[in-house]
Amino acid sequence: MSRTPRPIRSDIAWSTSDRIVVRGRDLPGEILGHMNLADFSFLQLTGREATPEQSRVYNALLITLVEHGLTPSVIAARMTYAGAPESLQAAVAAGLCGLGSVFVGTTEGAASMLHAALADGSTDLPAVAAEIVAGVRERRAIIPGLGHPLHKPIDPRTPRLFAIAEENGLSGRYVALMRLVGAEAEHVYDRALPINATGAIGALTNELGLPPKVVRGLGVMARAIGLVGHILEESEQPMAVELWQRADEEASAHLRSATS
Amino acid sequence: MSRTPRPIRSDIAWSTSDRIVVRGRDLPGEILGHMNLADFSFLQLTGREATPEQSRVYNALLITLVEHGLTPSVIAARMTYAGAPESLQAAVAAGLCGLGSVFVGTTEGAASMLHAALADGSTDLPAVAAEIVAGVRERRAIIPGLGHPLHKPIDPRTPRLFAIAEENGLSGRYVALMRLVGAEAEHVYDRALPINATGAIGALTNELGLPPKVVRGLGVMARAIGLVGHILEESEQPMAVELWQRADEEASAHLRSATS
Amino acid sequence: MSRTPRPIRSDIAWSTSDRIVVRGRDLPGEILGHMNLADFSFLQLTGREATPEQSRVYNALLITLVEHGLTPSVIAARMTYAGAPESLQAAVAAGLCGLGSVFVGTTEGAASMLHAALADGSTDLPAVAAEIVAGVRERRAIIPGLGHPLHKPIDPRTPRLFAIAEENGLSGRYVALMRLVGAEAEHVYDRALPINATGAIGALTNELGLPPKVVRGLGVMARAIGLVGHILEESEQPMAVELWQRADEEASAHLRSATS
Amino acid sequence: MSRTPRPIRSDIAWSTSDRIVVRGRDLPGEILGHMNLADFSFLQLTGREATPEQSRVYNALLITLVEHGLTPSVIAARMTYAGAPESLQAAVAAGLCGLGSVFVGTTEGAASMLHAALADGSTDLPAVAAEIVAGVRERRAIIPGLGHPLHKPIDPRTPRLFAIAEENGLSGRYVALMRLVGAEAEHVYDRALPINATGAIGALTNELGLPPKVVRGLGVMARAIGLVGHILEESEQPMAVELWQRADEEASAHLRSATS
Repeated sequence: MSRTPRPIRSDIAWSTSDRIVVRGRDLPGEILGHMNLADFSFLQLTGREATPEQSRVYNALLITLVEHGLTPSVIAARMTYAGAPESLQAAVAAGLCGLGSVFVGTTEGAASMLHAALADGSTDLPAVAAEIVAGVRERRAIIPGLGHPLHKPIDPRTPRLFAIAEENGLSGRYVALMRLVGAEAEHVYDRALPINATGAIGALTNELGLPPKVVRGLGVMARAIGLVGHILEESEQPMAVELWQRADEEASAHLRSATS
Repeated sequence: MSRTPRPIRSDIAWSTSDRIVVRGRDLPGEILGHMNLADFSFLQLTGREATPEQSRVYNALLITLVEHGLTPSVIAARMTYAGAPESLQAAVAAGLCGLGSVFVGTTEGAASMLHAALADGSTDLPAVAAEIVAGVRERRAIIPGLGHPLHKPIDPRTPRLFAIAEENGLSGRYVALMRLVGAEAEHVYDRALPINATGAIGALTNELGLPPKVVRGLGVMARAIGLVGHILEESEQPMAVELWQRADEEASAHLRSATS
Repeated sequence: MSRTPRPIRSDIAWSTSDRIVVRGRDLPGEILGHMNLADFSFLQLTGREATPEQSRVYNALLITLVEHGLTPSVIAARMTYAGAPESLQAAVAAGLCGLGSVFVGTTEGAASMLHAALADGSTDLPAVAAEIVAGVRERRAIIPGLGHPLHKPIDPRTPRLFAIAEENGLSGRYVALMRLVGAEAEHVYDRALPINATGAIGALTNELGLPPKVVRGLGVMARAIGLVGHILEESEQPMAVELWQRADEEASAHLRSATS
Repeated sequence: MSRTPRPIRSDIAWSTSDRIVVRGRDLPGEILGHMNLADFSFLQLTGREATPEQSRVYNALLITLVEHGLTPSVIAARMTYAGAPESLQAAVAAGLCGLGSVFVGTTEGAASMLHAALADGSTDLPAVAAEIVAGVRERRAIIPGLGHPLHKPIDPRTPRLFAIAEENGLSGRYVALMRLVGAEAEHVYDRALPINATGAIGALTNELGLPPKVVRGLGVMARAIGLVGHILEESEQPMAVELWQRADEEASAHLRSATS
């Protein structure tokens, strides 16, 4: 029990009575009024200030992740708000809890695939793409970032995100590789496999120099923003109680009728 | 059990195979590349597009709420990440759960106070301020938005937020009332009671036409952004396990020594 | 910044390489095989071992709170599981987040009312009951623990919980007061106001010497148990995706049709 | 968009105005006063009533998982309570969010390993054990359920849990296999590798006929019970604010001193 404590440190922010400093910048004097919210996130996450080009791409990428209609996550948040309207924060938290391997969490896949494939500095992108597709096929796995159950033949977000990257000089080798992977996959599997939003986002986070593991975090912060909008709507135009009553009645109808 | 279902509706977003539309705007065509993240939040929340002036104020206000160093909320998120690094979303959720009546949730107070005070269209702001302070004093309550345990004599965020509002033509009667309440309180209680960041934010959300109940939501979305940065740092430079071991050892030392 | 650290301590448990001790009892030797789960909870919470009578009442009370069918909390948990099946813990967490002022959290109300009313040692219970009802009526509030939207004319759990308390010698002045409050309210309001399960539970927690503030905690721990059962069922017989798709389609149908 | 709805159903519980029925049993009449809390959980989870022997083993197993002192999960819950004392449920939720792959979630590993190994009805347990250890060794993985960083040379919970199983006729082939795996591993790796509590619990859940995927759920429900006890203590004898202030000061000291 005579453990020697190891020091802890955080390099993000500090404050004193008259100062608040984030990543070395004075919050009131150098940040407020000078940056937009996404730029501040970029600074807080990476310690670097986004260039105007990076800012445009990072803003577009985050906006893409904010709102997807009445998702399971939104329904969880609205149900939670119905039970605890005094704890709006807990309703957002409940909504975030489900952003895992099935929804949103998948954004990480494409980012990691592209990052790993180019980590050794390969420049023969077509060869790298062929290798990726062959490897996935052999493992009978699914290529992250391709195909979409609803958005077909193309995911309308992808060409727009790639165009924004292009306009801002950020359409580099990760975007190129993602496109080659898509083309190779369509060739090999002989069917339409359009690059979906998570494929585009995975390419762009790499172009921005963000580590793949932070990508799920981008989805989480974006959805937190979207959930607040849904909770505000729930407070004015509720649906949770109605959805609950319908579900409760239907789900146990067979038990009730078996008895009566 | 023959309940007639009531219809449900949401006016935020919809999508089909080739379209994604948020608040009536085509996401790829009219939003991506045309708005920044905070503007998109403003649109999603209110159905209105922020003017350039509103955009600057809304961005500043949200940035103010993102990052406050190693808060209890951040420690909860880091502890959670240490136990479930595969569920980054759950770590952010855990951090948000504590944004309640003691921290962050208090932002609502000032916004509600100002909103209620001017709901009847009063124009005699000094009289309104005097009434607010007298009422709080009588109830032996605390005036929301004034004073700060660390940031004194002034909270450095407040003058900057008010200056940004001024520069953008959004320093209206809510800002004026908040200032009058502060001055009146200092006079009545005869001590320094500077307007803190939550007082400034409560005034600005009213200037932006946002309902007071959404204010806690702004804090929640902003902190979600900040928590992602802390979790990324925790993944690279961890402190949770060290903090846990120190706490565990110290907290039960008296029990161990009583036995041996 | 030269703050002197204050010591921290916890009196619940400690362990060394060969021992695990909870509330002064050796976990393997004195607890495992000697107590049931609820008794262990009672010990962990209070530091006291439940008598056999207290054990029967505490078990019955907790069981009452475990399962109420397909509640909003259950739906939130199932939605979360659908998105993050690898994080079962986050699905339970999401379900718990909504146990607030509208559902479950209300158990606290009756417990607090009874506790406060008898805190001064009053023995004239009918007078105390009359005072409670009159006070609530004056404030135009609702008496906690009375009435139920579904379970009428009586809540079938209440007579059974009171009978178990009676059989175990734990039907004391809190149970008597709850009954008197119910009778007085029916008299004053001239309508059926049966004591509901939360009224019965509020009386029993007081009989057990548990502080009112822990009552919400009992609901939370009980529901955590129930949520695990629902998540297991969801994993075998899912409904979340179906409920989501129905809701999403219906809620935005008016937006889609307005466009096409 | 002309999807045909699929029916949803839940077989756990139903209620009408005068009845509450769980897994076919009348809650007031057949359950309250007749079962203990863990037995009710067993019924709700599996649809089967635990035998007295299963009840003793299931109670012991759950109790083992309730309380482990000041864990990261407990600290997250206490931090959350400090910020939102009005939302006790959110503090428990925050604590649960971290029960993932590093802590508690690992219980699943041993249960799954034993379940898979005997799924084909093998009876030559020593051969099965040898195969498991050889397989793990080849994959350079870790055998779930063996070894403990603190509890050595033996985990005091394991012999007690196995003795309770033995006394209740539930020490069957899963317990035997877990022991053989432990012995084989010690032989092959030539070092002490005692069966830890999660190894014992993984064996016992299989003896009880519980599916491996529910095992993490048992840890989650048990910890929910334990977290309520810690939050009650936090409300009376707080440590969160102190831990936070110490951490905040230490973590950013280098940034403050670099500036002044």
